[in-house]
Amino acid sequence: MADEVEGLRFEQRHGKARVRVARVWKDENGRHFFVEWNVSISLLSDCLPAYVRGDNSDIVATDTMKNTVYVKAKECSEQLSVEDFAIGLAKHFTSFYQQVTTAIIKIVEKPWERVCIDGQPHGHGFKLGSEKHTTEVAVKKSGALLVSSGIEGLSLLKTTKSGFEGFIRDKNTILPETRERMLATEVSASWRYPFESLSSIPAKPLYFTERYIDVKKVLIDTFFGPPKEGVYSASVQSTLYHMAKAVLGRFPDISSIQLKMPNLHFLPVNLSSKDNPVIVKFEDDVYLPTDEPHGSIEASLSRIWSKM
Amino acid sequence: MADEVEGLRFEQRHGKARVRVARVWKDENGRHFFVEWNVSISLLSDCLPAYVRGDNSDIVATDTMKNTVYVKAKECSEQLSVEDFAIGLAKHFTSFYQQVTTAIIKIVEKPWERVCIDGQPHGHGFKLGSEKHTTEVAVKKSGALLVSSGIEGLSLLKTTKSGFEGFIRDKNTILPETRERMLATEVSASWRYPFESLSSIPAKPLYFTERYIDVKKVLIDTFFGPPKEGVYSASVQSTLYHMAKAVLGRFPDISSIQLKMPNLHFLPVNLSSKDNPVIVKFEDDVYLPTDEPHGSIEASLSRIWSKM
Amino acid sequence: MADEVEGLRFEQRHGKARVRVARVWKDENGRHFFVEWNVSISLLSDCLPAYVRGDNSDIVATDTMKNTVYVKAKECSEQLSVEDFAIGLAKHFTSFYQQVTTAIIKIVEKPWERVCIDGQPHGHGFKLGSEKHTTEVAVKKSGALLVSSGIEGLSLLKTTKSGFEGFIRDKNTILPETRERMLATEVSASWRYPFESLSSIPAKPLYFTERYIDVKKVLIDTFFGPPKEGVYSASVQSTLYHMAKAVLGRFPDISSIQLKMPNLHFLPVNLSSKDNPVIVKFEDDVYLPTDEPHGSIEASLSRIWSKM
Amino acid sequence: MADEVEGLRFEQRHGKARVRVARVWKDENGRHFFVEWNVSISLLSDCLPAYVRGDNSDIVATDTMKNTVYVKAKECSEQLSVEDFAIGLAKHFTSFYQQVTTAIIKIVEKPWERVCIDGQPHGHGFKLGSEKHTTEVAVKKSGALLVSSGIEGLSLLKTTKSGFEGFIRDKNTILPETRERMLATEVSASWRYPFESLSSIPAKPLYFTERYIDVKKVLIDTFFGPPKEGVYSASVQSTLYHMAKAVLGRFPDISSIQLKMPNLHFLPVNLSSKDNPVIVKFEDDVYLPTDEPHGSIEASLSRIWSKM
Repeated sequence: MADEVEGLRFEQRHGKARVRVARVWKDENGRHFFVEWNVSISLLSDCLPAYVRGDNSDIVATDTMKNTVYVKAKECSEQLSVEDFAIGLAKHFTSFYQQVTTAIIKIVEKPWERVCIDGQPHGHGFKLGSEKHTTEVAVKKSGALLVSSGIEGLSLLKTTKSGFEGFIRDKNTILPETRERMLATEVSASWRYPFESLSSIPAKPLYFTERYIDVKKVLIDTFFGPPKEGVYSASVQSTLYHMAKAVLGRFPDISSIQLKMPNLHFLPVNLSSKDNPVIVKFEDDVYLPTDEPHGSIEASLSRIWSKM
Repeated sequence: MADEVEGLRFEQRHGKARVRVARVWKDENGRHFFVEWNVSISLLSDCLPAYVRGDNSDIVATDTMKNTVYVKAKECSEQLSVEDFAIGLAKHFTSFYQQVTTAIIKIVEKPWERVCIDGQPHGHGFKLGSEKHTTEVAVKKSGALLVSSGIEGLSLLKTTKSGFEGFIRDKNTILPETRERMLATEVSASWRYPFESLSSIPAKPLYFTERYIDVKKVLIDTFFGPPKEGVYSASVQSTLYHMAKAVLGRFPDISSIQLKMPNLHFLPVNLSSKDNPVIVKFEDDVYLPTDEPHGSIEASLSRIWSKM
Repeated sequence: MADEVEGLRFEQRHGKARVRVARVWKDENGRHFFVEWNVSISLLSDCLPAYVRGDNSDIVATDTMKNTVYVKAKECSEQLSVEDFAIGLAKHFTSFYQQVTTAIIKIVEKPWERVCIDGQPHGHGFKLGSEKHTTEVAVKKSGALLVSSGIEGLSLLKTTKSGFEGFIRDKNTILPETRERMLATEVSASWRYPFESLSSIPAKPLYFTERYIDVKKVLIDTFFGPPKEGVYSASVQSTLYHMAKAVLGRFPDISSIQLKMPNLHFLPVNLSSKDNPVIVKFEDDVYLPTDEPHGSIEASLSRIWSKM
Repeated sequence: MADEVEGLRFEQRHGKARVRVARVWKDENGRHFFVEWNVSISLLSDCLPAYVRGDNSDIVATDTMKNTVYVKAKECSEQLSVEDFAIGLAKHFTSFYQQVTTAIIKIVEKPWERVCIDGQPHGHGFKLGSEKHTTEVAVKKSGALLVSSGIEGLSLLKTTKSGFEGFIRDKNTILPETRERMLATEVSASWRYPFESLSSIPAKPLYFTERYIDVKKVLIDTFFGPPKEGVYSASVQSTLYHMAKAVLGRFPDISSIQLKMPNLHFLPVNLSSKDNPVIVKFEDDVYLPTDEPHGSIEASLSRIWSKM
């Protein structure tokens, strides 16, 4: 959306962020289903006069965008995936408003999980879990589509089977090499589906929700390895790559995946003083967890030479 | 710890907060156990000259307190409950330093949970969960003791079987009465044990850890009711009271419990405009979740007329 | 508010937190005045049947409390201090509702400051500053009153004239002594006024606002010392004490003050490796700022042997 | 940095985030100068074997990156702008390591401001302010350069001279038109300099620091208008555009500017109930401030058809 205005190049977008909505559905047996979404809407649209001349006649008010989230949530008569909701919302903005050329919707789903009481799933009780399901969707007026799903806040830790050796040593290098360390990270993942138009979206209900669960399982399984032996990690880089590769290898309907895996560092504790050369000696037992500074490793793996 | 100084009343304490430590233990089968703790230490001590005259000779440096956390973590040769670690730490400060009359230790345990891969518990893999186990311990030089445990961040939600009726109506009252609403809250709980001296602490390993799990189950079960029918909540106040009562009823070794249950409000969505009197009509389906403002309900229930 | 219920001791309170309100006033010259407040209300009241029997007939709905904040803000026809607003609000709850025995109001004022353009104060423009003015007020049905004011988030730092020496050295002590270090802290202050009933509140408009500015100046001046030479700090403890003493010494209408001054640590940077014994050598120049762990020093100084 | 690996497209970067450093300088008169920076480093480098084969021989350890920040801070013998520090750091990584093709450095400067005591600037005392100075720099091995500076957290509010009218009205539109409302926003700005190689950076000391102060002044002045009359805002869009235009109009050495101006909404308070049709009637006096949802308006204005 670049325009030329008064001899300058101008790009703009406007939208509504942090629109929160929750939806309840009930089935014939009285069982309740529940989701809570935090929706961000961003519209690319032809509305230059608003910026340049204070003429708002082409502006979709952000308050109207917010109302539309509730209208669309109301229209969902059956439970649907967060991706399907995002697509429907984006489609509305590009088809209803002549001025809107592209709609970008991001949603974070709050991890409410059905509660079990004495092993029985509860009919209408939910408890907040940890990592979050996210989606980002872009729809153009032409019907062209980008859909991606993601995970936020998936914190994983293994107490062994991790090392870091053979890296560059120079005058500023202090870190010792090791084949035995803690490995912990907060994974953010985002993967892209190959559906390039509104008409190519799978019709199967909750298709995207299932895929989210599947991908999460592959990421976790690859990070940890088998329950007994685990798997050795030569670096965050190496583990990240194998996680990405496992997802693409397993799911032909995923065209690319991006992973961000910042270290959650656990530093070995060794303490000494002049008078007391060994106050605490580290033996793979006592660690100092720290949030800053932290390594930040990220990469994307794609089936094709397309733009991530 | 009130002193008189230059004709004024003076109270003071100093300590170290946010001391983070992680500890790994391994059993004979190569299985790893892991905890991560965030420790706050606060000492009441005789050290007035530091405040009044700049004489630090009675001051335990907060850096030394931090080191002591690591020394004590190192000394734990077997897995122990966070409460037992807090008690041991507090005991050290009051017995080792003549100046220290009382040590108050608060610890928050990060909710790392053992991962399962294909239904099998992993030998050294952990994933971050949601609500947190906390403890607060106070130990005096005499050996007198207070121990409490708690839960932070336990978010619970039920989509039905909740109402709020019959409250005071006055000129500023707008809220309609209802027998059908969403009920959601983030529970903070804190309960006190009856052990009043270091010598009366139960010897059973992981006694406090087990009790934490038990109390959490009773709180959750009482909040939701049976899996099929649930249980009607006449107010947050009423539900809170029944949760507190259930815990004291069930566990003779808990002498009091405090619950804070702020509302997580889910507002019914009704939208209308002059031109369009019904844009969205609420039918127990579409909600606006909001964090502020929120109701804040808290209460404590004790076996005896002791100070909470 | 302790009651006996079913053989147990019961204490409770309920209220509304995070009620946000902003108020604009205009003077005859078209100048605007503006405040933004975040209000928390907590009521002690006779409403046991709500907890025990699900009978809400003595409950002031928290939604009604929220509405009352707006009603009271509307009634303020002239600019007033946040303390006076809190007192008026508390008085309403205890006098209007027979059930309410005590009302506790806490307010945080957002630090919006009038903007200057080319040295001229702007008629209606404001910019957000840093530290916040707070108040806490408790009013009983009898008219008995506690009023305190405070500061939150006042971060102060001096790059010299600070040391820490002569403290206890034991087996866990590593910290070296020093007469030259950085001293930084985020001050939280709270002071109490001697007015013990609604009738004894000063009539002077904006009395509390002026006093807030005065106290802040004394705290800052005492922390830093004269502009040229500064003043030596022997410890956070010592500096804290002198700040508290200066406030009580200067303002006879303040009966006590509490200060919390956690360290914002700036660690000296020294780096070395086996191959390179001096990578960075500290010369009072390069520091590593860190938020955790941190020392936590707090104390209160009172004119009288009253409860803080 | 896209590579082909095992038939897939692979992009990666790694670095160290949240590296905190503070630096003190002293002049001949004993006056101290002080900065605190939070540095993020991200390197694009040839190190595929680390990902694919677990061979770390081309990896710059993120710990080494962190150390380098301290080494470079030590080497700064005179006070310098945050931009110059970022450029120097980036240059080190691309010139010292053969594997590194591009270094991206982001820094946030903490807003420590020299304190005044009785109108006199203090020699070594600082207090934390509000909005933050940021920079982002990218340097390639060739010496090619991108430098941008920014502001974070500049919250501005005007109580009048703002409206929003004439926007699209449709079935989901509820918002009334107005010529009198509160306008508030938290400005994030980022502007680009035209210097395209390391050799073209201005030699003038603190050039970037001065420019930061200048740009902030133009943004604020344009937002508010003259101290007496102010200036009418027809929308956030319109005000944003005029702010961007004013910066480019004033500073020939700025080639583009991006502004993000989310609304800080202040909703008019009107309260009514069935029994009481006017509890509170809004008269440009009482507002409900709210953070969510919020409008999000962003745009960039560039001198040339280059990529922002």
